[in-house]
Amino acid sequence: MRIVVDVMGGDHGCEVVIEGVKQALQTNARISEIYLVGHEQAIQTALTQCQLRDSRVSVVHASEVLTMQDKPVEGIRRKKDCSILRAVELLKSGKAEALISPGNTGGLVAASTIRLRNLEGVDRVGIATVIPTQENEFVLLDSGANVESRPLHLLHYAVMGSVYSREILGYKKPRVGILSNGTEENKGNDLTLETFKLCKLVDINFIGNVEGHDLFHNRVDVVVCDGFVGNIVLKTIESFAKGLMGWLKTELTKNPIRILGALLAKNALRTIKRRMDPDAYGGAPLLGLNGNVMKAHGSARERAIMNAIRVSTQAIQSQINQVIREEIARANDRVAAAKLSLVPA
Amino acid sequence: MRIVVDVMGGDHGCEVVIEGVKQALQTNARISEIYLVGHEQAIQTALTQCQLRDSRVSVVHASEVLTMQDKPVEGIRRKKDCSILRAVELLKSGKAEALISPGNTGGLVAASTIRLRNLEGVDRVGIATVIPTQENEFVLLDSGANVESRPLHLLHYAVMGSVYSREILGYKKPRVGILSNGTEENKGNDLTLETFKLCKLVDINFIGNVEGHDLFHNRVDVVVCDGFVGNIVLKTIESFAKGLMGWLKTELTKNPIRILGALLAKNALRTIKRRMDPDAYGGAPLLGLNGNVMKAHGSARERAIMNAIRVSTQAIQSQINQVIREEIARANDRVAAAKLSLVPA
Repeated sequence: MRIVVDVMGGDHGCEVVIEGVKQALQTNARISEIYLVGHEQAIQTALTQCQLRDSRVSVVHASEVLTMQDKPVEGIRRKKDCSILRAVELLKSGKAEALISPGNTGGLVAASTIRLRNLEGVDRVGIATVIPTQENEFVLLDSGANVESRPLHLLHYAVMGSVYSREILGYKKPRVGILSNGTEENKGNDLTLETFKLCKLVDINFIGNVEGHDLFHNRVDVVVCDGFVGNIVLKTIESFAKGLMGWLKTELTKNPIRILGALLAKNALRTIKRRMDPDAYGGAPLLGLNGNVMKAHGSARERAIMNAIRVSTQAIQSQINQVIREEIARANDRVAAAKLSLVPA
Repeated sequence: MRIVVDVMGGDHGCEVVIEGVKQALQTNARISEIYLVGHEQAIQTALTQCQLRDSRVSVVHASEVLTMQDKPVEGIRRKKDCSILRAVELLKSGKAEALISPGNTGGLVAASTIRLRNLEGVDRVGIATVIPTQENEFVLLDSGANVESRPLHLLHYAVMGSVYSREILGYKKPRVGILSNGTEENKGNDLTLETFKLCKLVDINFIGNVEGHDLFHNRVDVVVCDGFVGNIVLKTIESFAKGLMGWLKTELTKNPIRILGALLAKNALRTIKRRMDPDAYGGAPLLGLNGNVMKAHGSARERAIMNAIRVSTQAIQSQINQVIREEIARANDRVAAAKLSLVPA
């Protein structure tokens, strides 16, 4: 399998990304080629530093970087030779089968959408973030690709999230819910109420509305919402988890007895921390594109990059976009048929 | 001070609510009268059971209860003698100065809005929930009174939340932020982008957009959003906290060493748990009404009811609605003036 990695634009510099690539090459025999896109000199220095010498690695020079401060569409237009665009081109040309980038999210969405185009039948790309709980892991989408959505976009997120949960996470009949302010069918805003009607038409395991209370109690596997709500929910969870871990650390180190207690119980805390670690997936796929694109966290470290590459190889293997295209076509047919039947005779 | 408590409609029955009233009477000398509204016989039984004999207590009979299953407006119309309506009437007549109810949220909002009317200048009532973090506590509003909002509603939430944070929680210059999908001024949906412009006009400590990442790191004291988003955020936080505590318990009891560690560190965990406990505030006020109305959690227990009564006496003392009316009037003037200046000469 051939992977392209945009090594620029992450928070920790390209050395960390390349170290992650090295670990991926060591552990994943399915990789036949990895393209590293970015400033050539910086990449060569990093390759020497982390002693990565592997015939599967090719370096592709890009003279510019889209930073977190750049406005996505404007930046893409202005920085023609930025690493995100160069990486997307390798995917488009077929040289690579999957792309990973820790750079500017909006820039990655814009570049991918403009150059690769959406899958047939899909209007809007969605970012699918996997969130672990004690008993399951749910996919939250859209978690930030599009701020304003229409019901059909949310329906497509429901279908694509369902495919992802099944093909990549291994849930046989993923439970799909619309995130709302209550579980009753009449709860919601105009967007979710309309989406509810559409979701009932298509071939997914639709369980209706879910509310915040359902998320961490193994009641739903695919949580559908617009990118505004999804982004807020995702970041609120991250913020709460981080805040709580810091708080716990403060309280657990306040006196010698608590420190001893924490030492004895450290494996319990470590188990939870490790499972909640976003690095386990390494990134969130952009679903709905003609190509496998994964957004790694800006703060992704070695392990995150390695895991993002692993998940990308799974996506290639399962031909997930082919499956999505077929299921979206079926869903669109159902919606069209339902509309026809609503036309007065 | 004269308080009315709707003792019906909570998850644990009226005994628990009345036990909370008893504790409030024992600890709060400012209470001169408490009306208990609900089924008289049930109340008398509960009063005997918890041995509450206090001349400050009056029982007001209501033959019906609005349950959690009732649709708010429809229920209010159908159940004319329900405890929520009777309680609201006592507030309206001036017999009571503050109301607490653990019942149907939508029903309480509907009954209060219809009977008490909004404060002059306020279009929509907002539910303000106080959420504790390690270093501060922020007010989230609207956390569920209105699903669809307009920019002016959110502006009013900003002003009312600011007053509440200052008068009740004691923050001198509360930092007010609009909850969005990024901190930059250009991030957001149509609603938040318009609200941003309005918030800049008025006399609050407006810090711009905040995102989920800011919530638990002492960066904001008043978080403004529509009731759809607020309800989802609130319930997601509750769900995550509950899920994590359960998970921690499972992990900490897996073997004797961990159990010993947990015992030694239990005060650390207890400190956090106690501070995060929603019972510390007992409920969330409905801001923007002609009257002090507080929604207690459906699952509120004795301590929550006692604290809800305590917070209500603070609201009475600070004459919070008088302050809100004045600040809303000033804000509306500013908005009107800004609009005038936009008219072409």
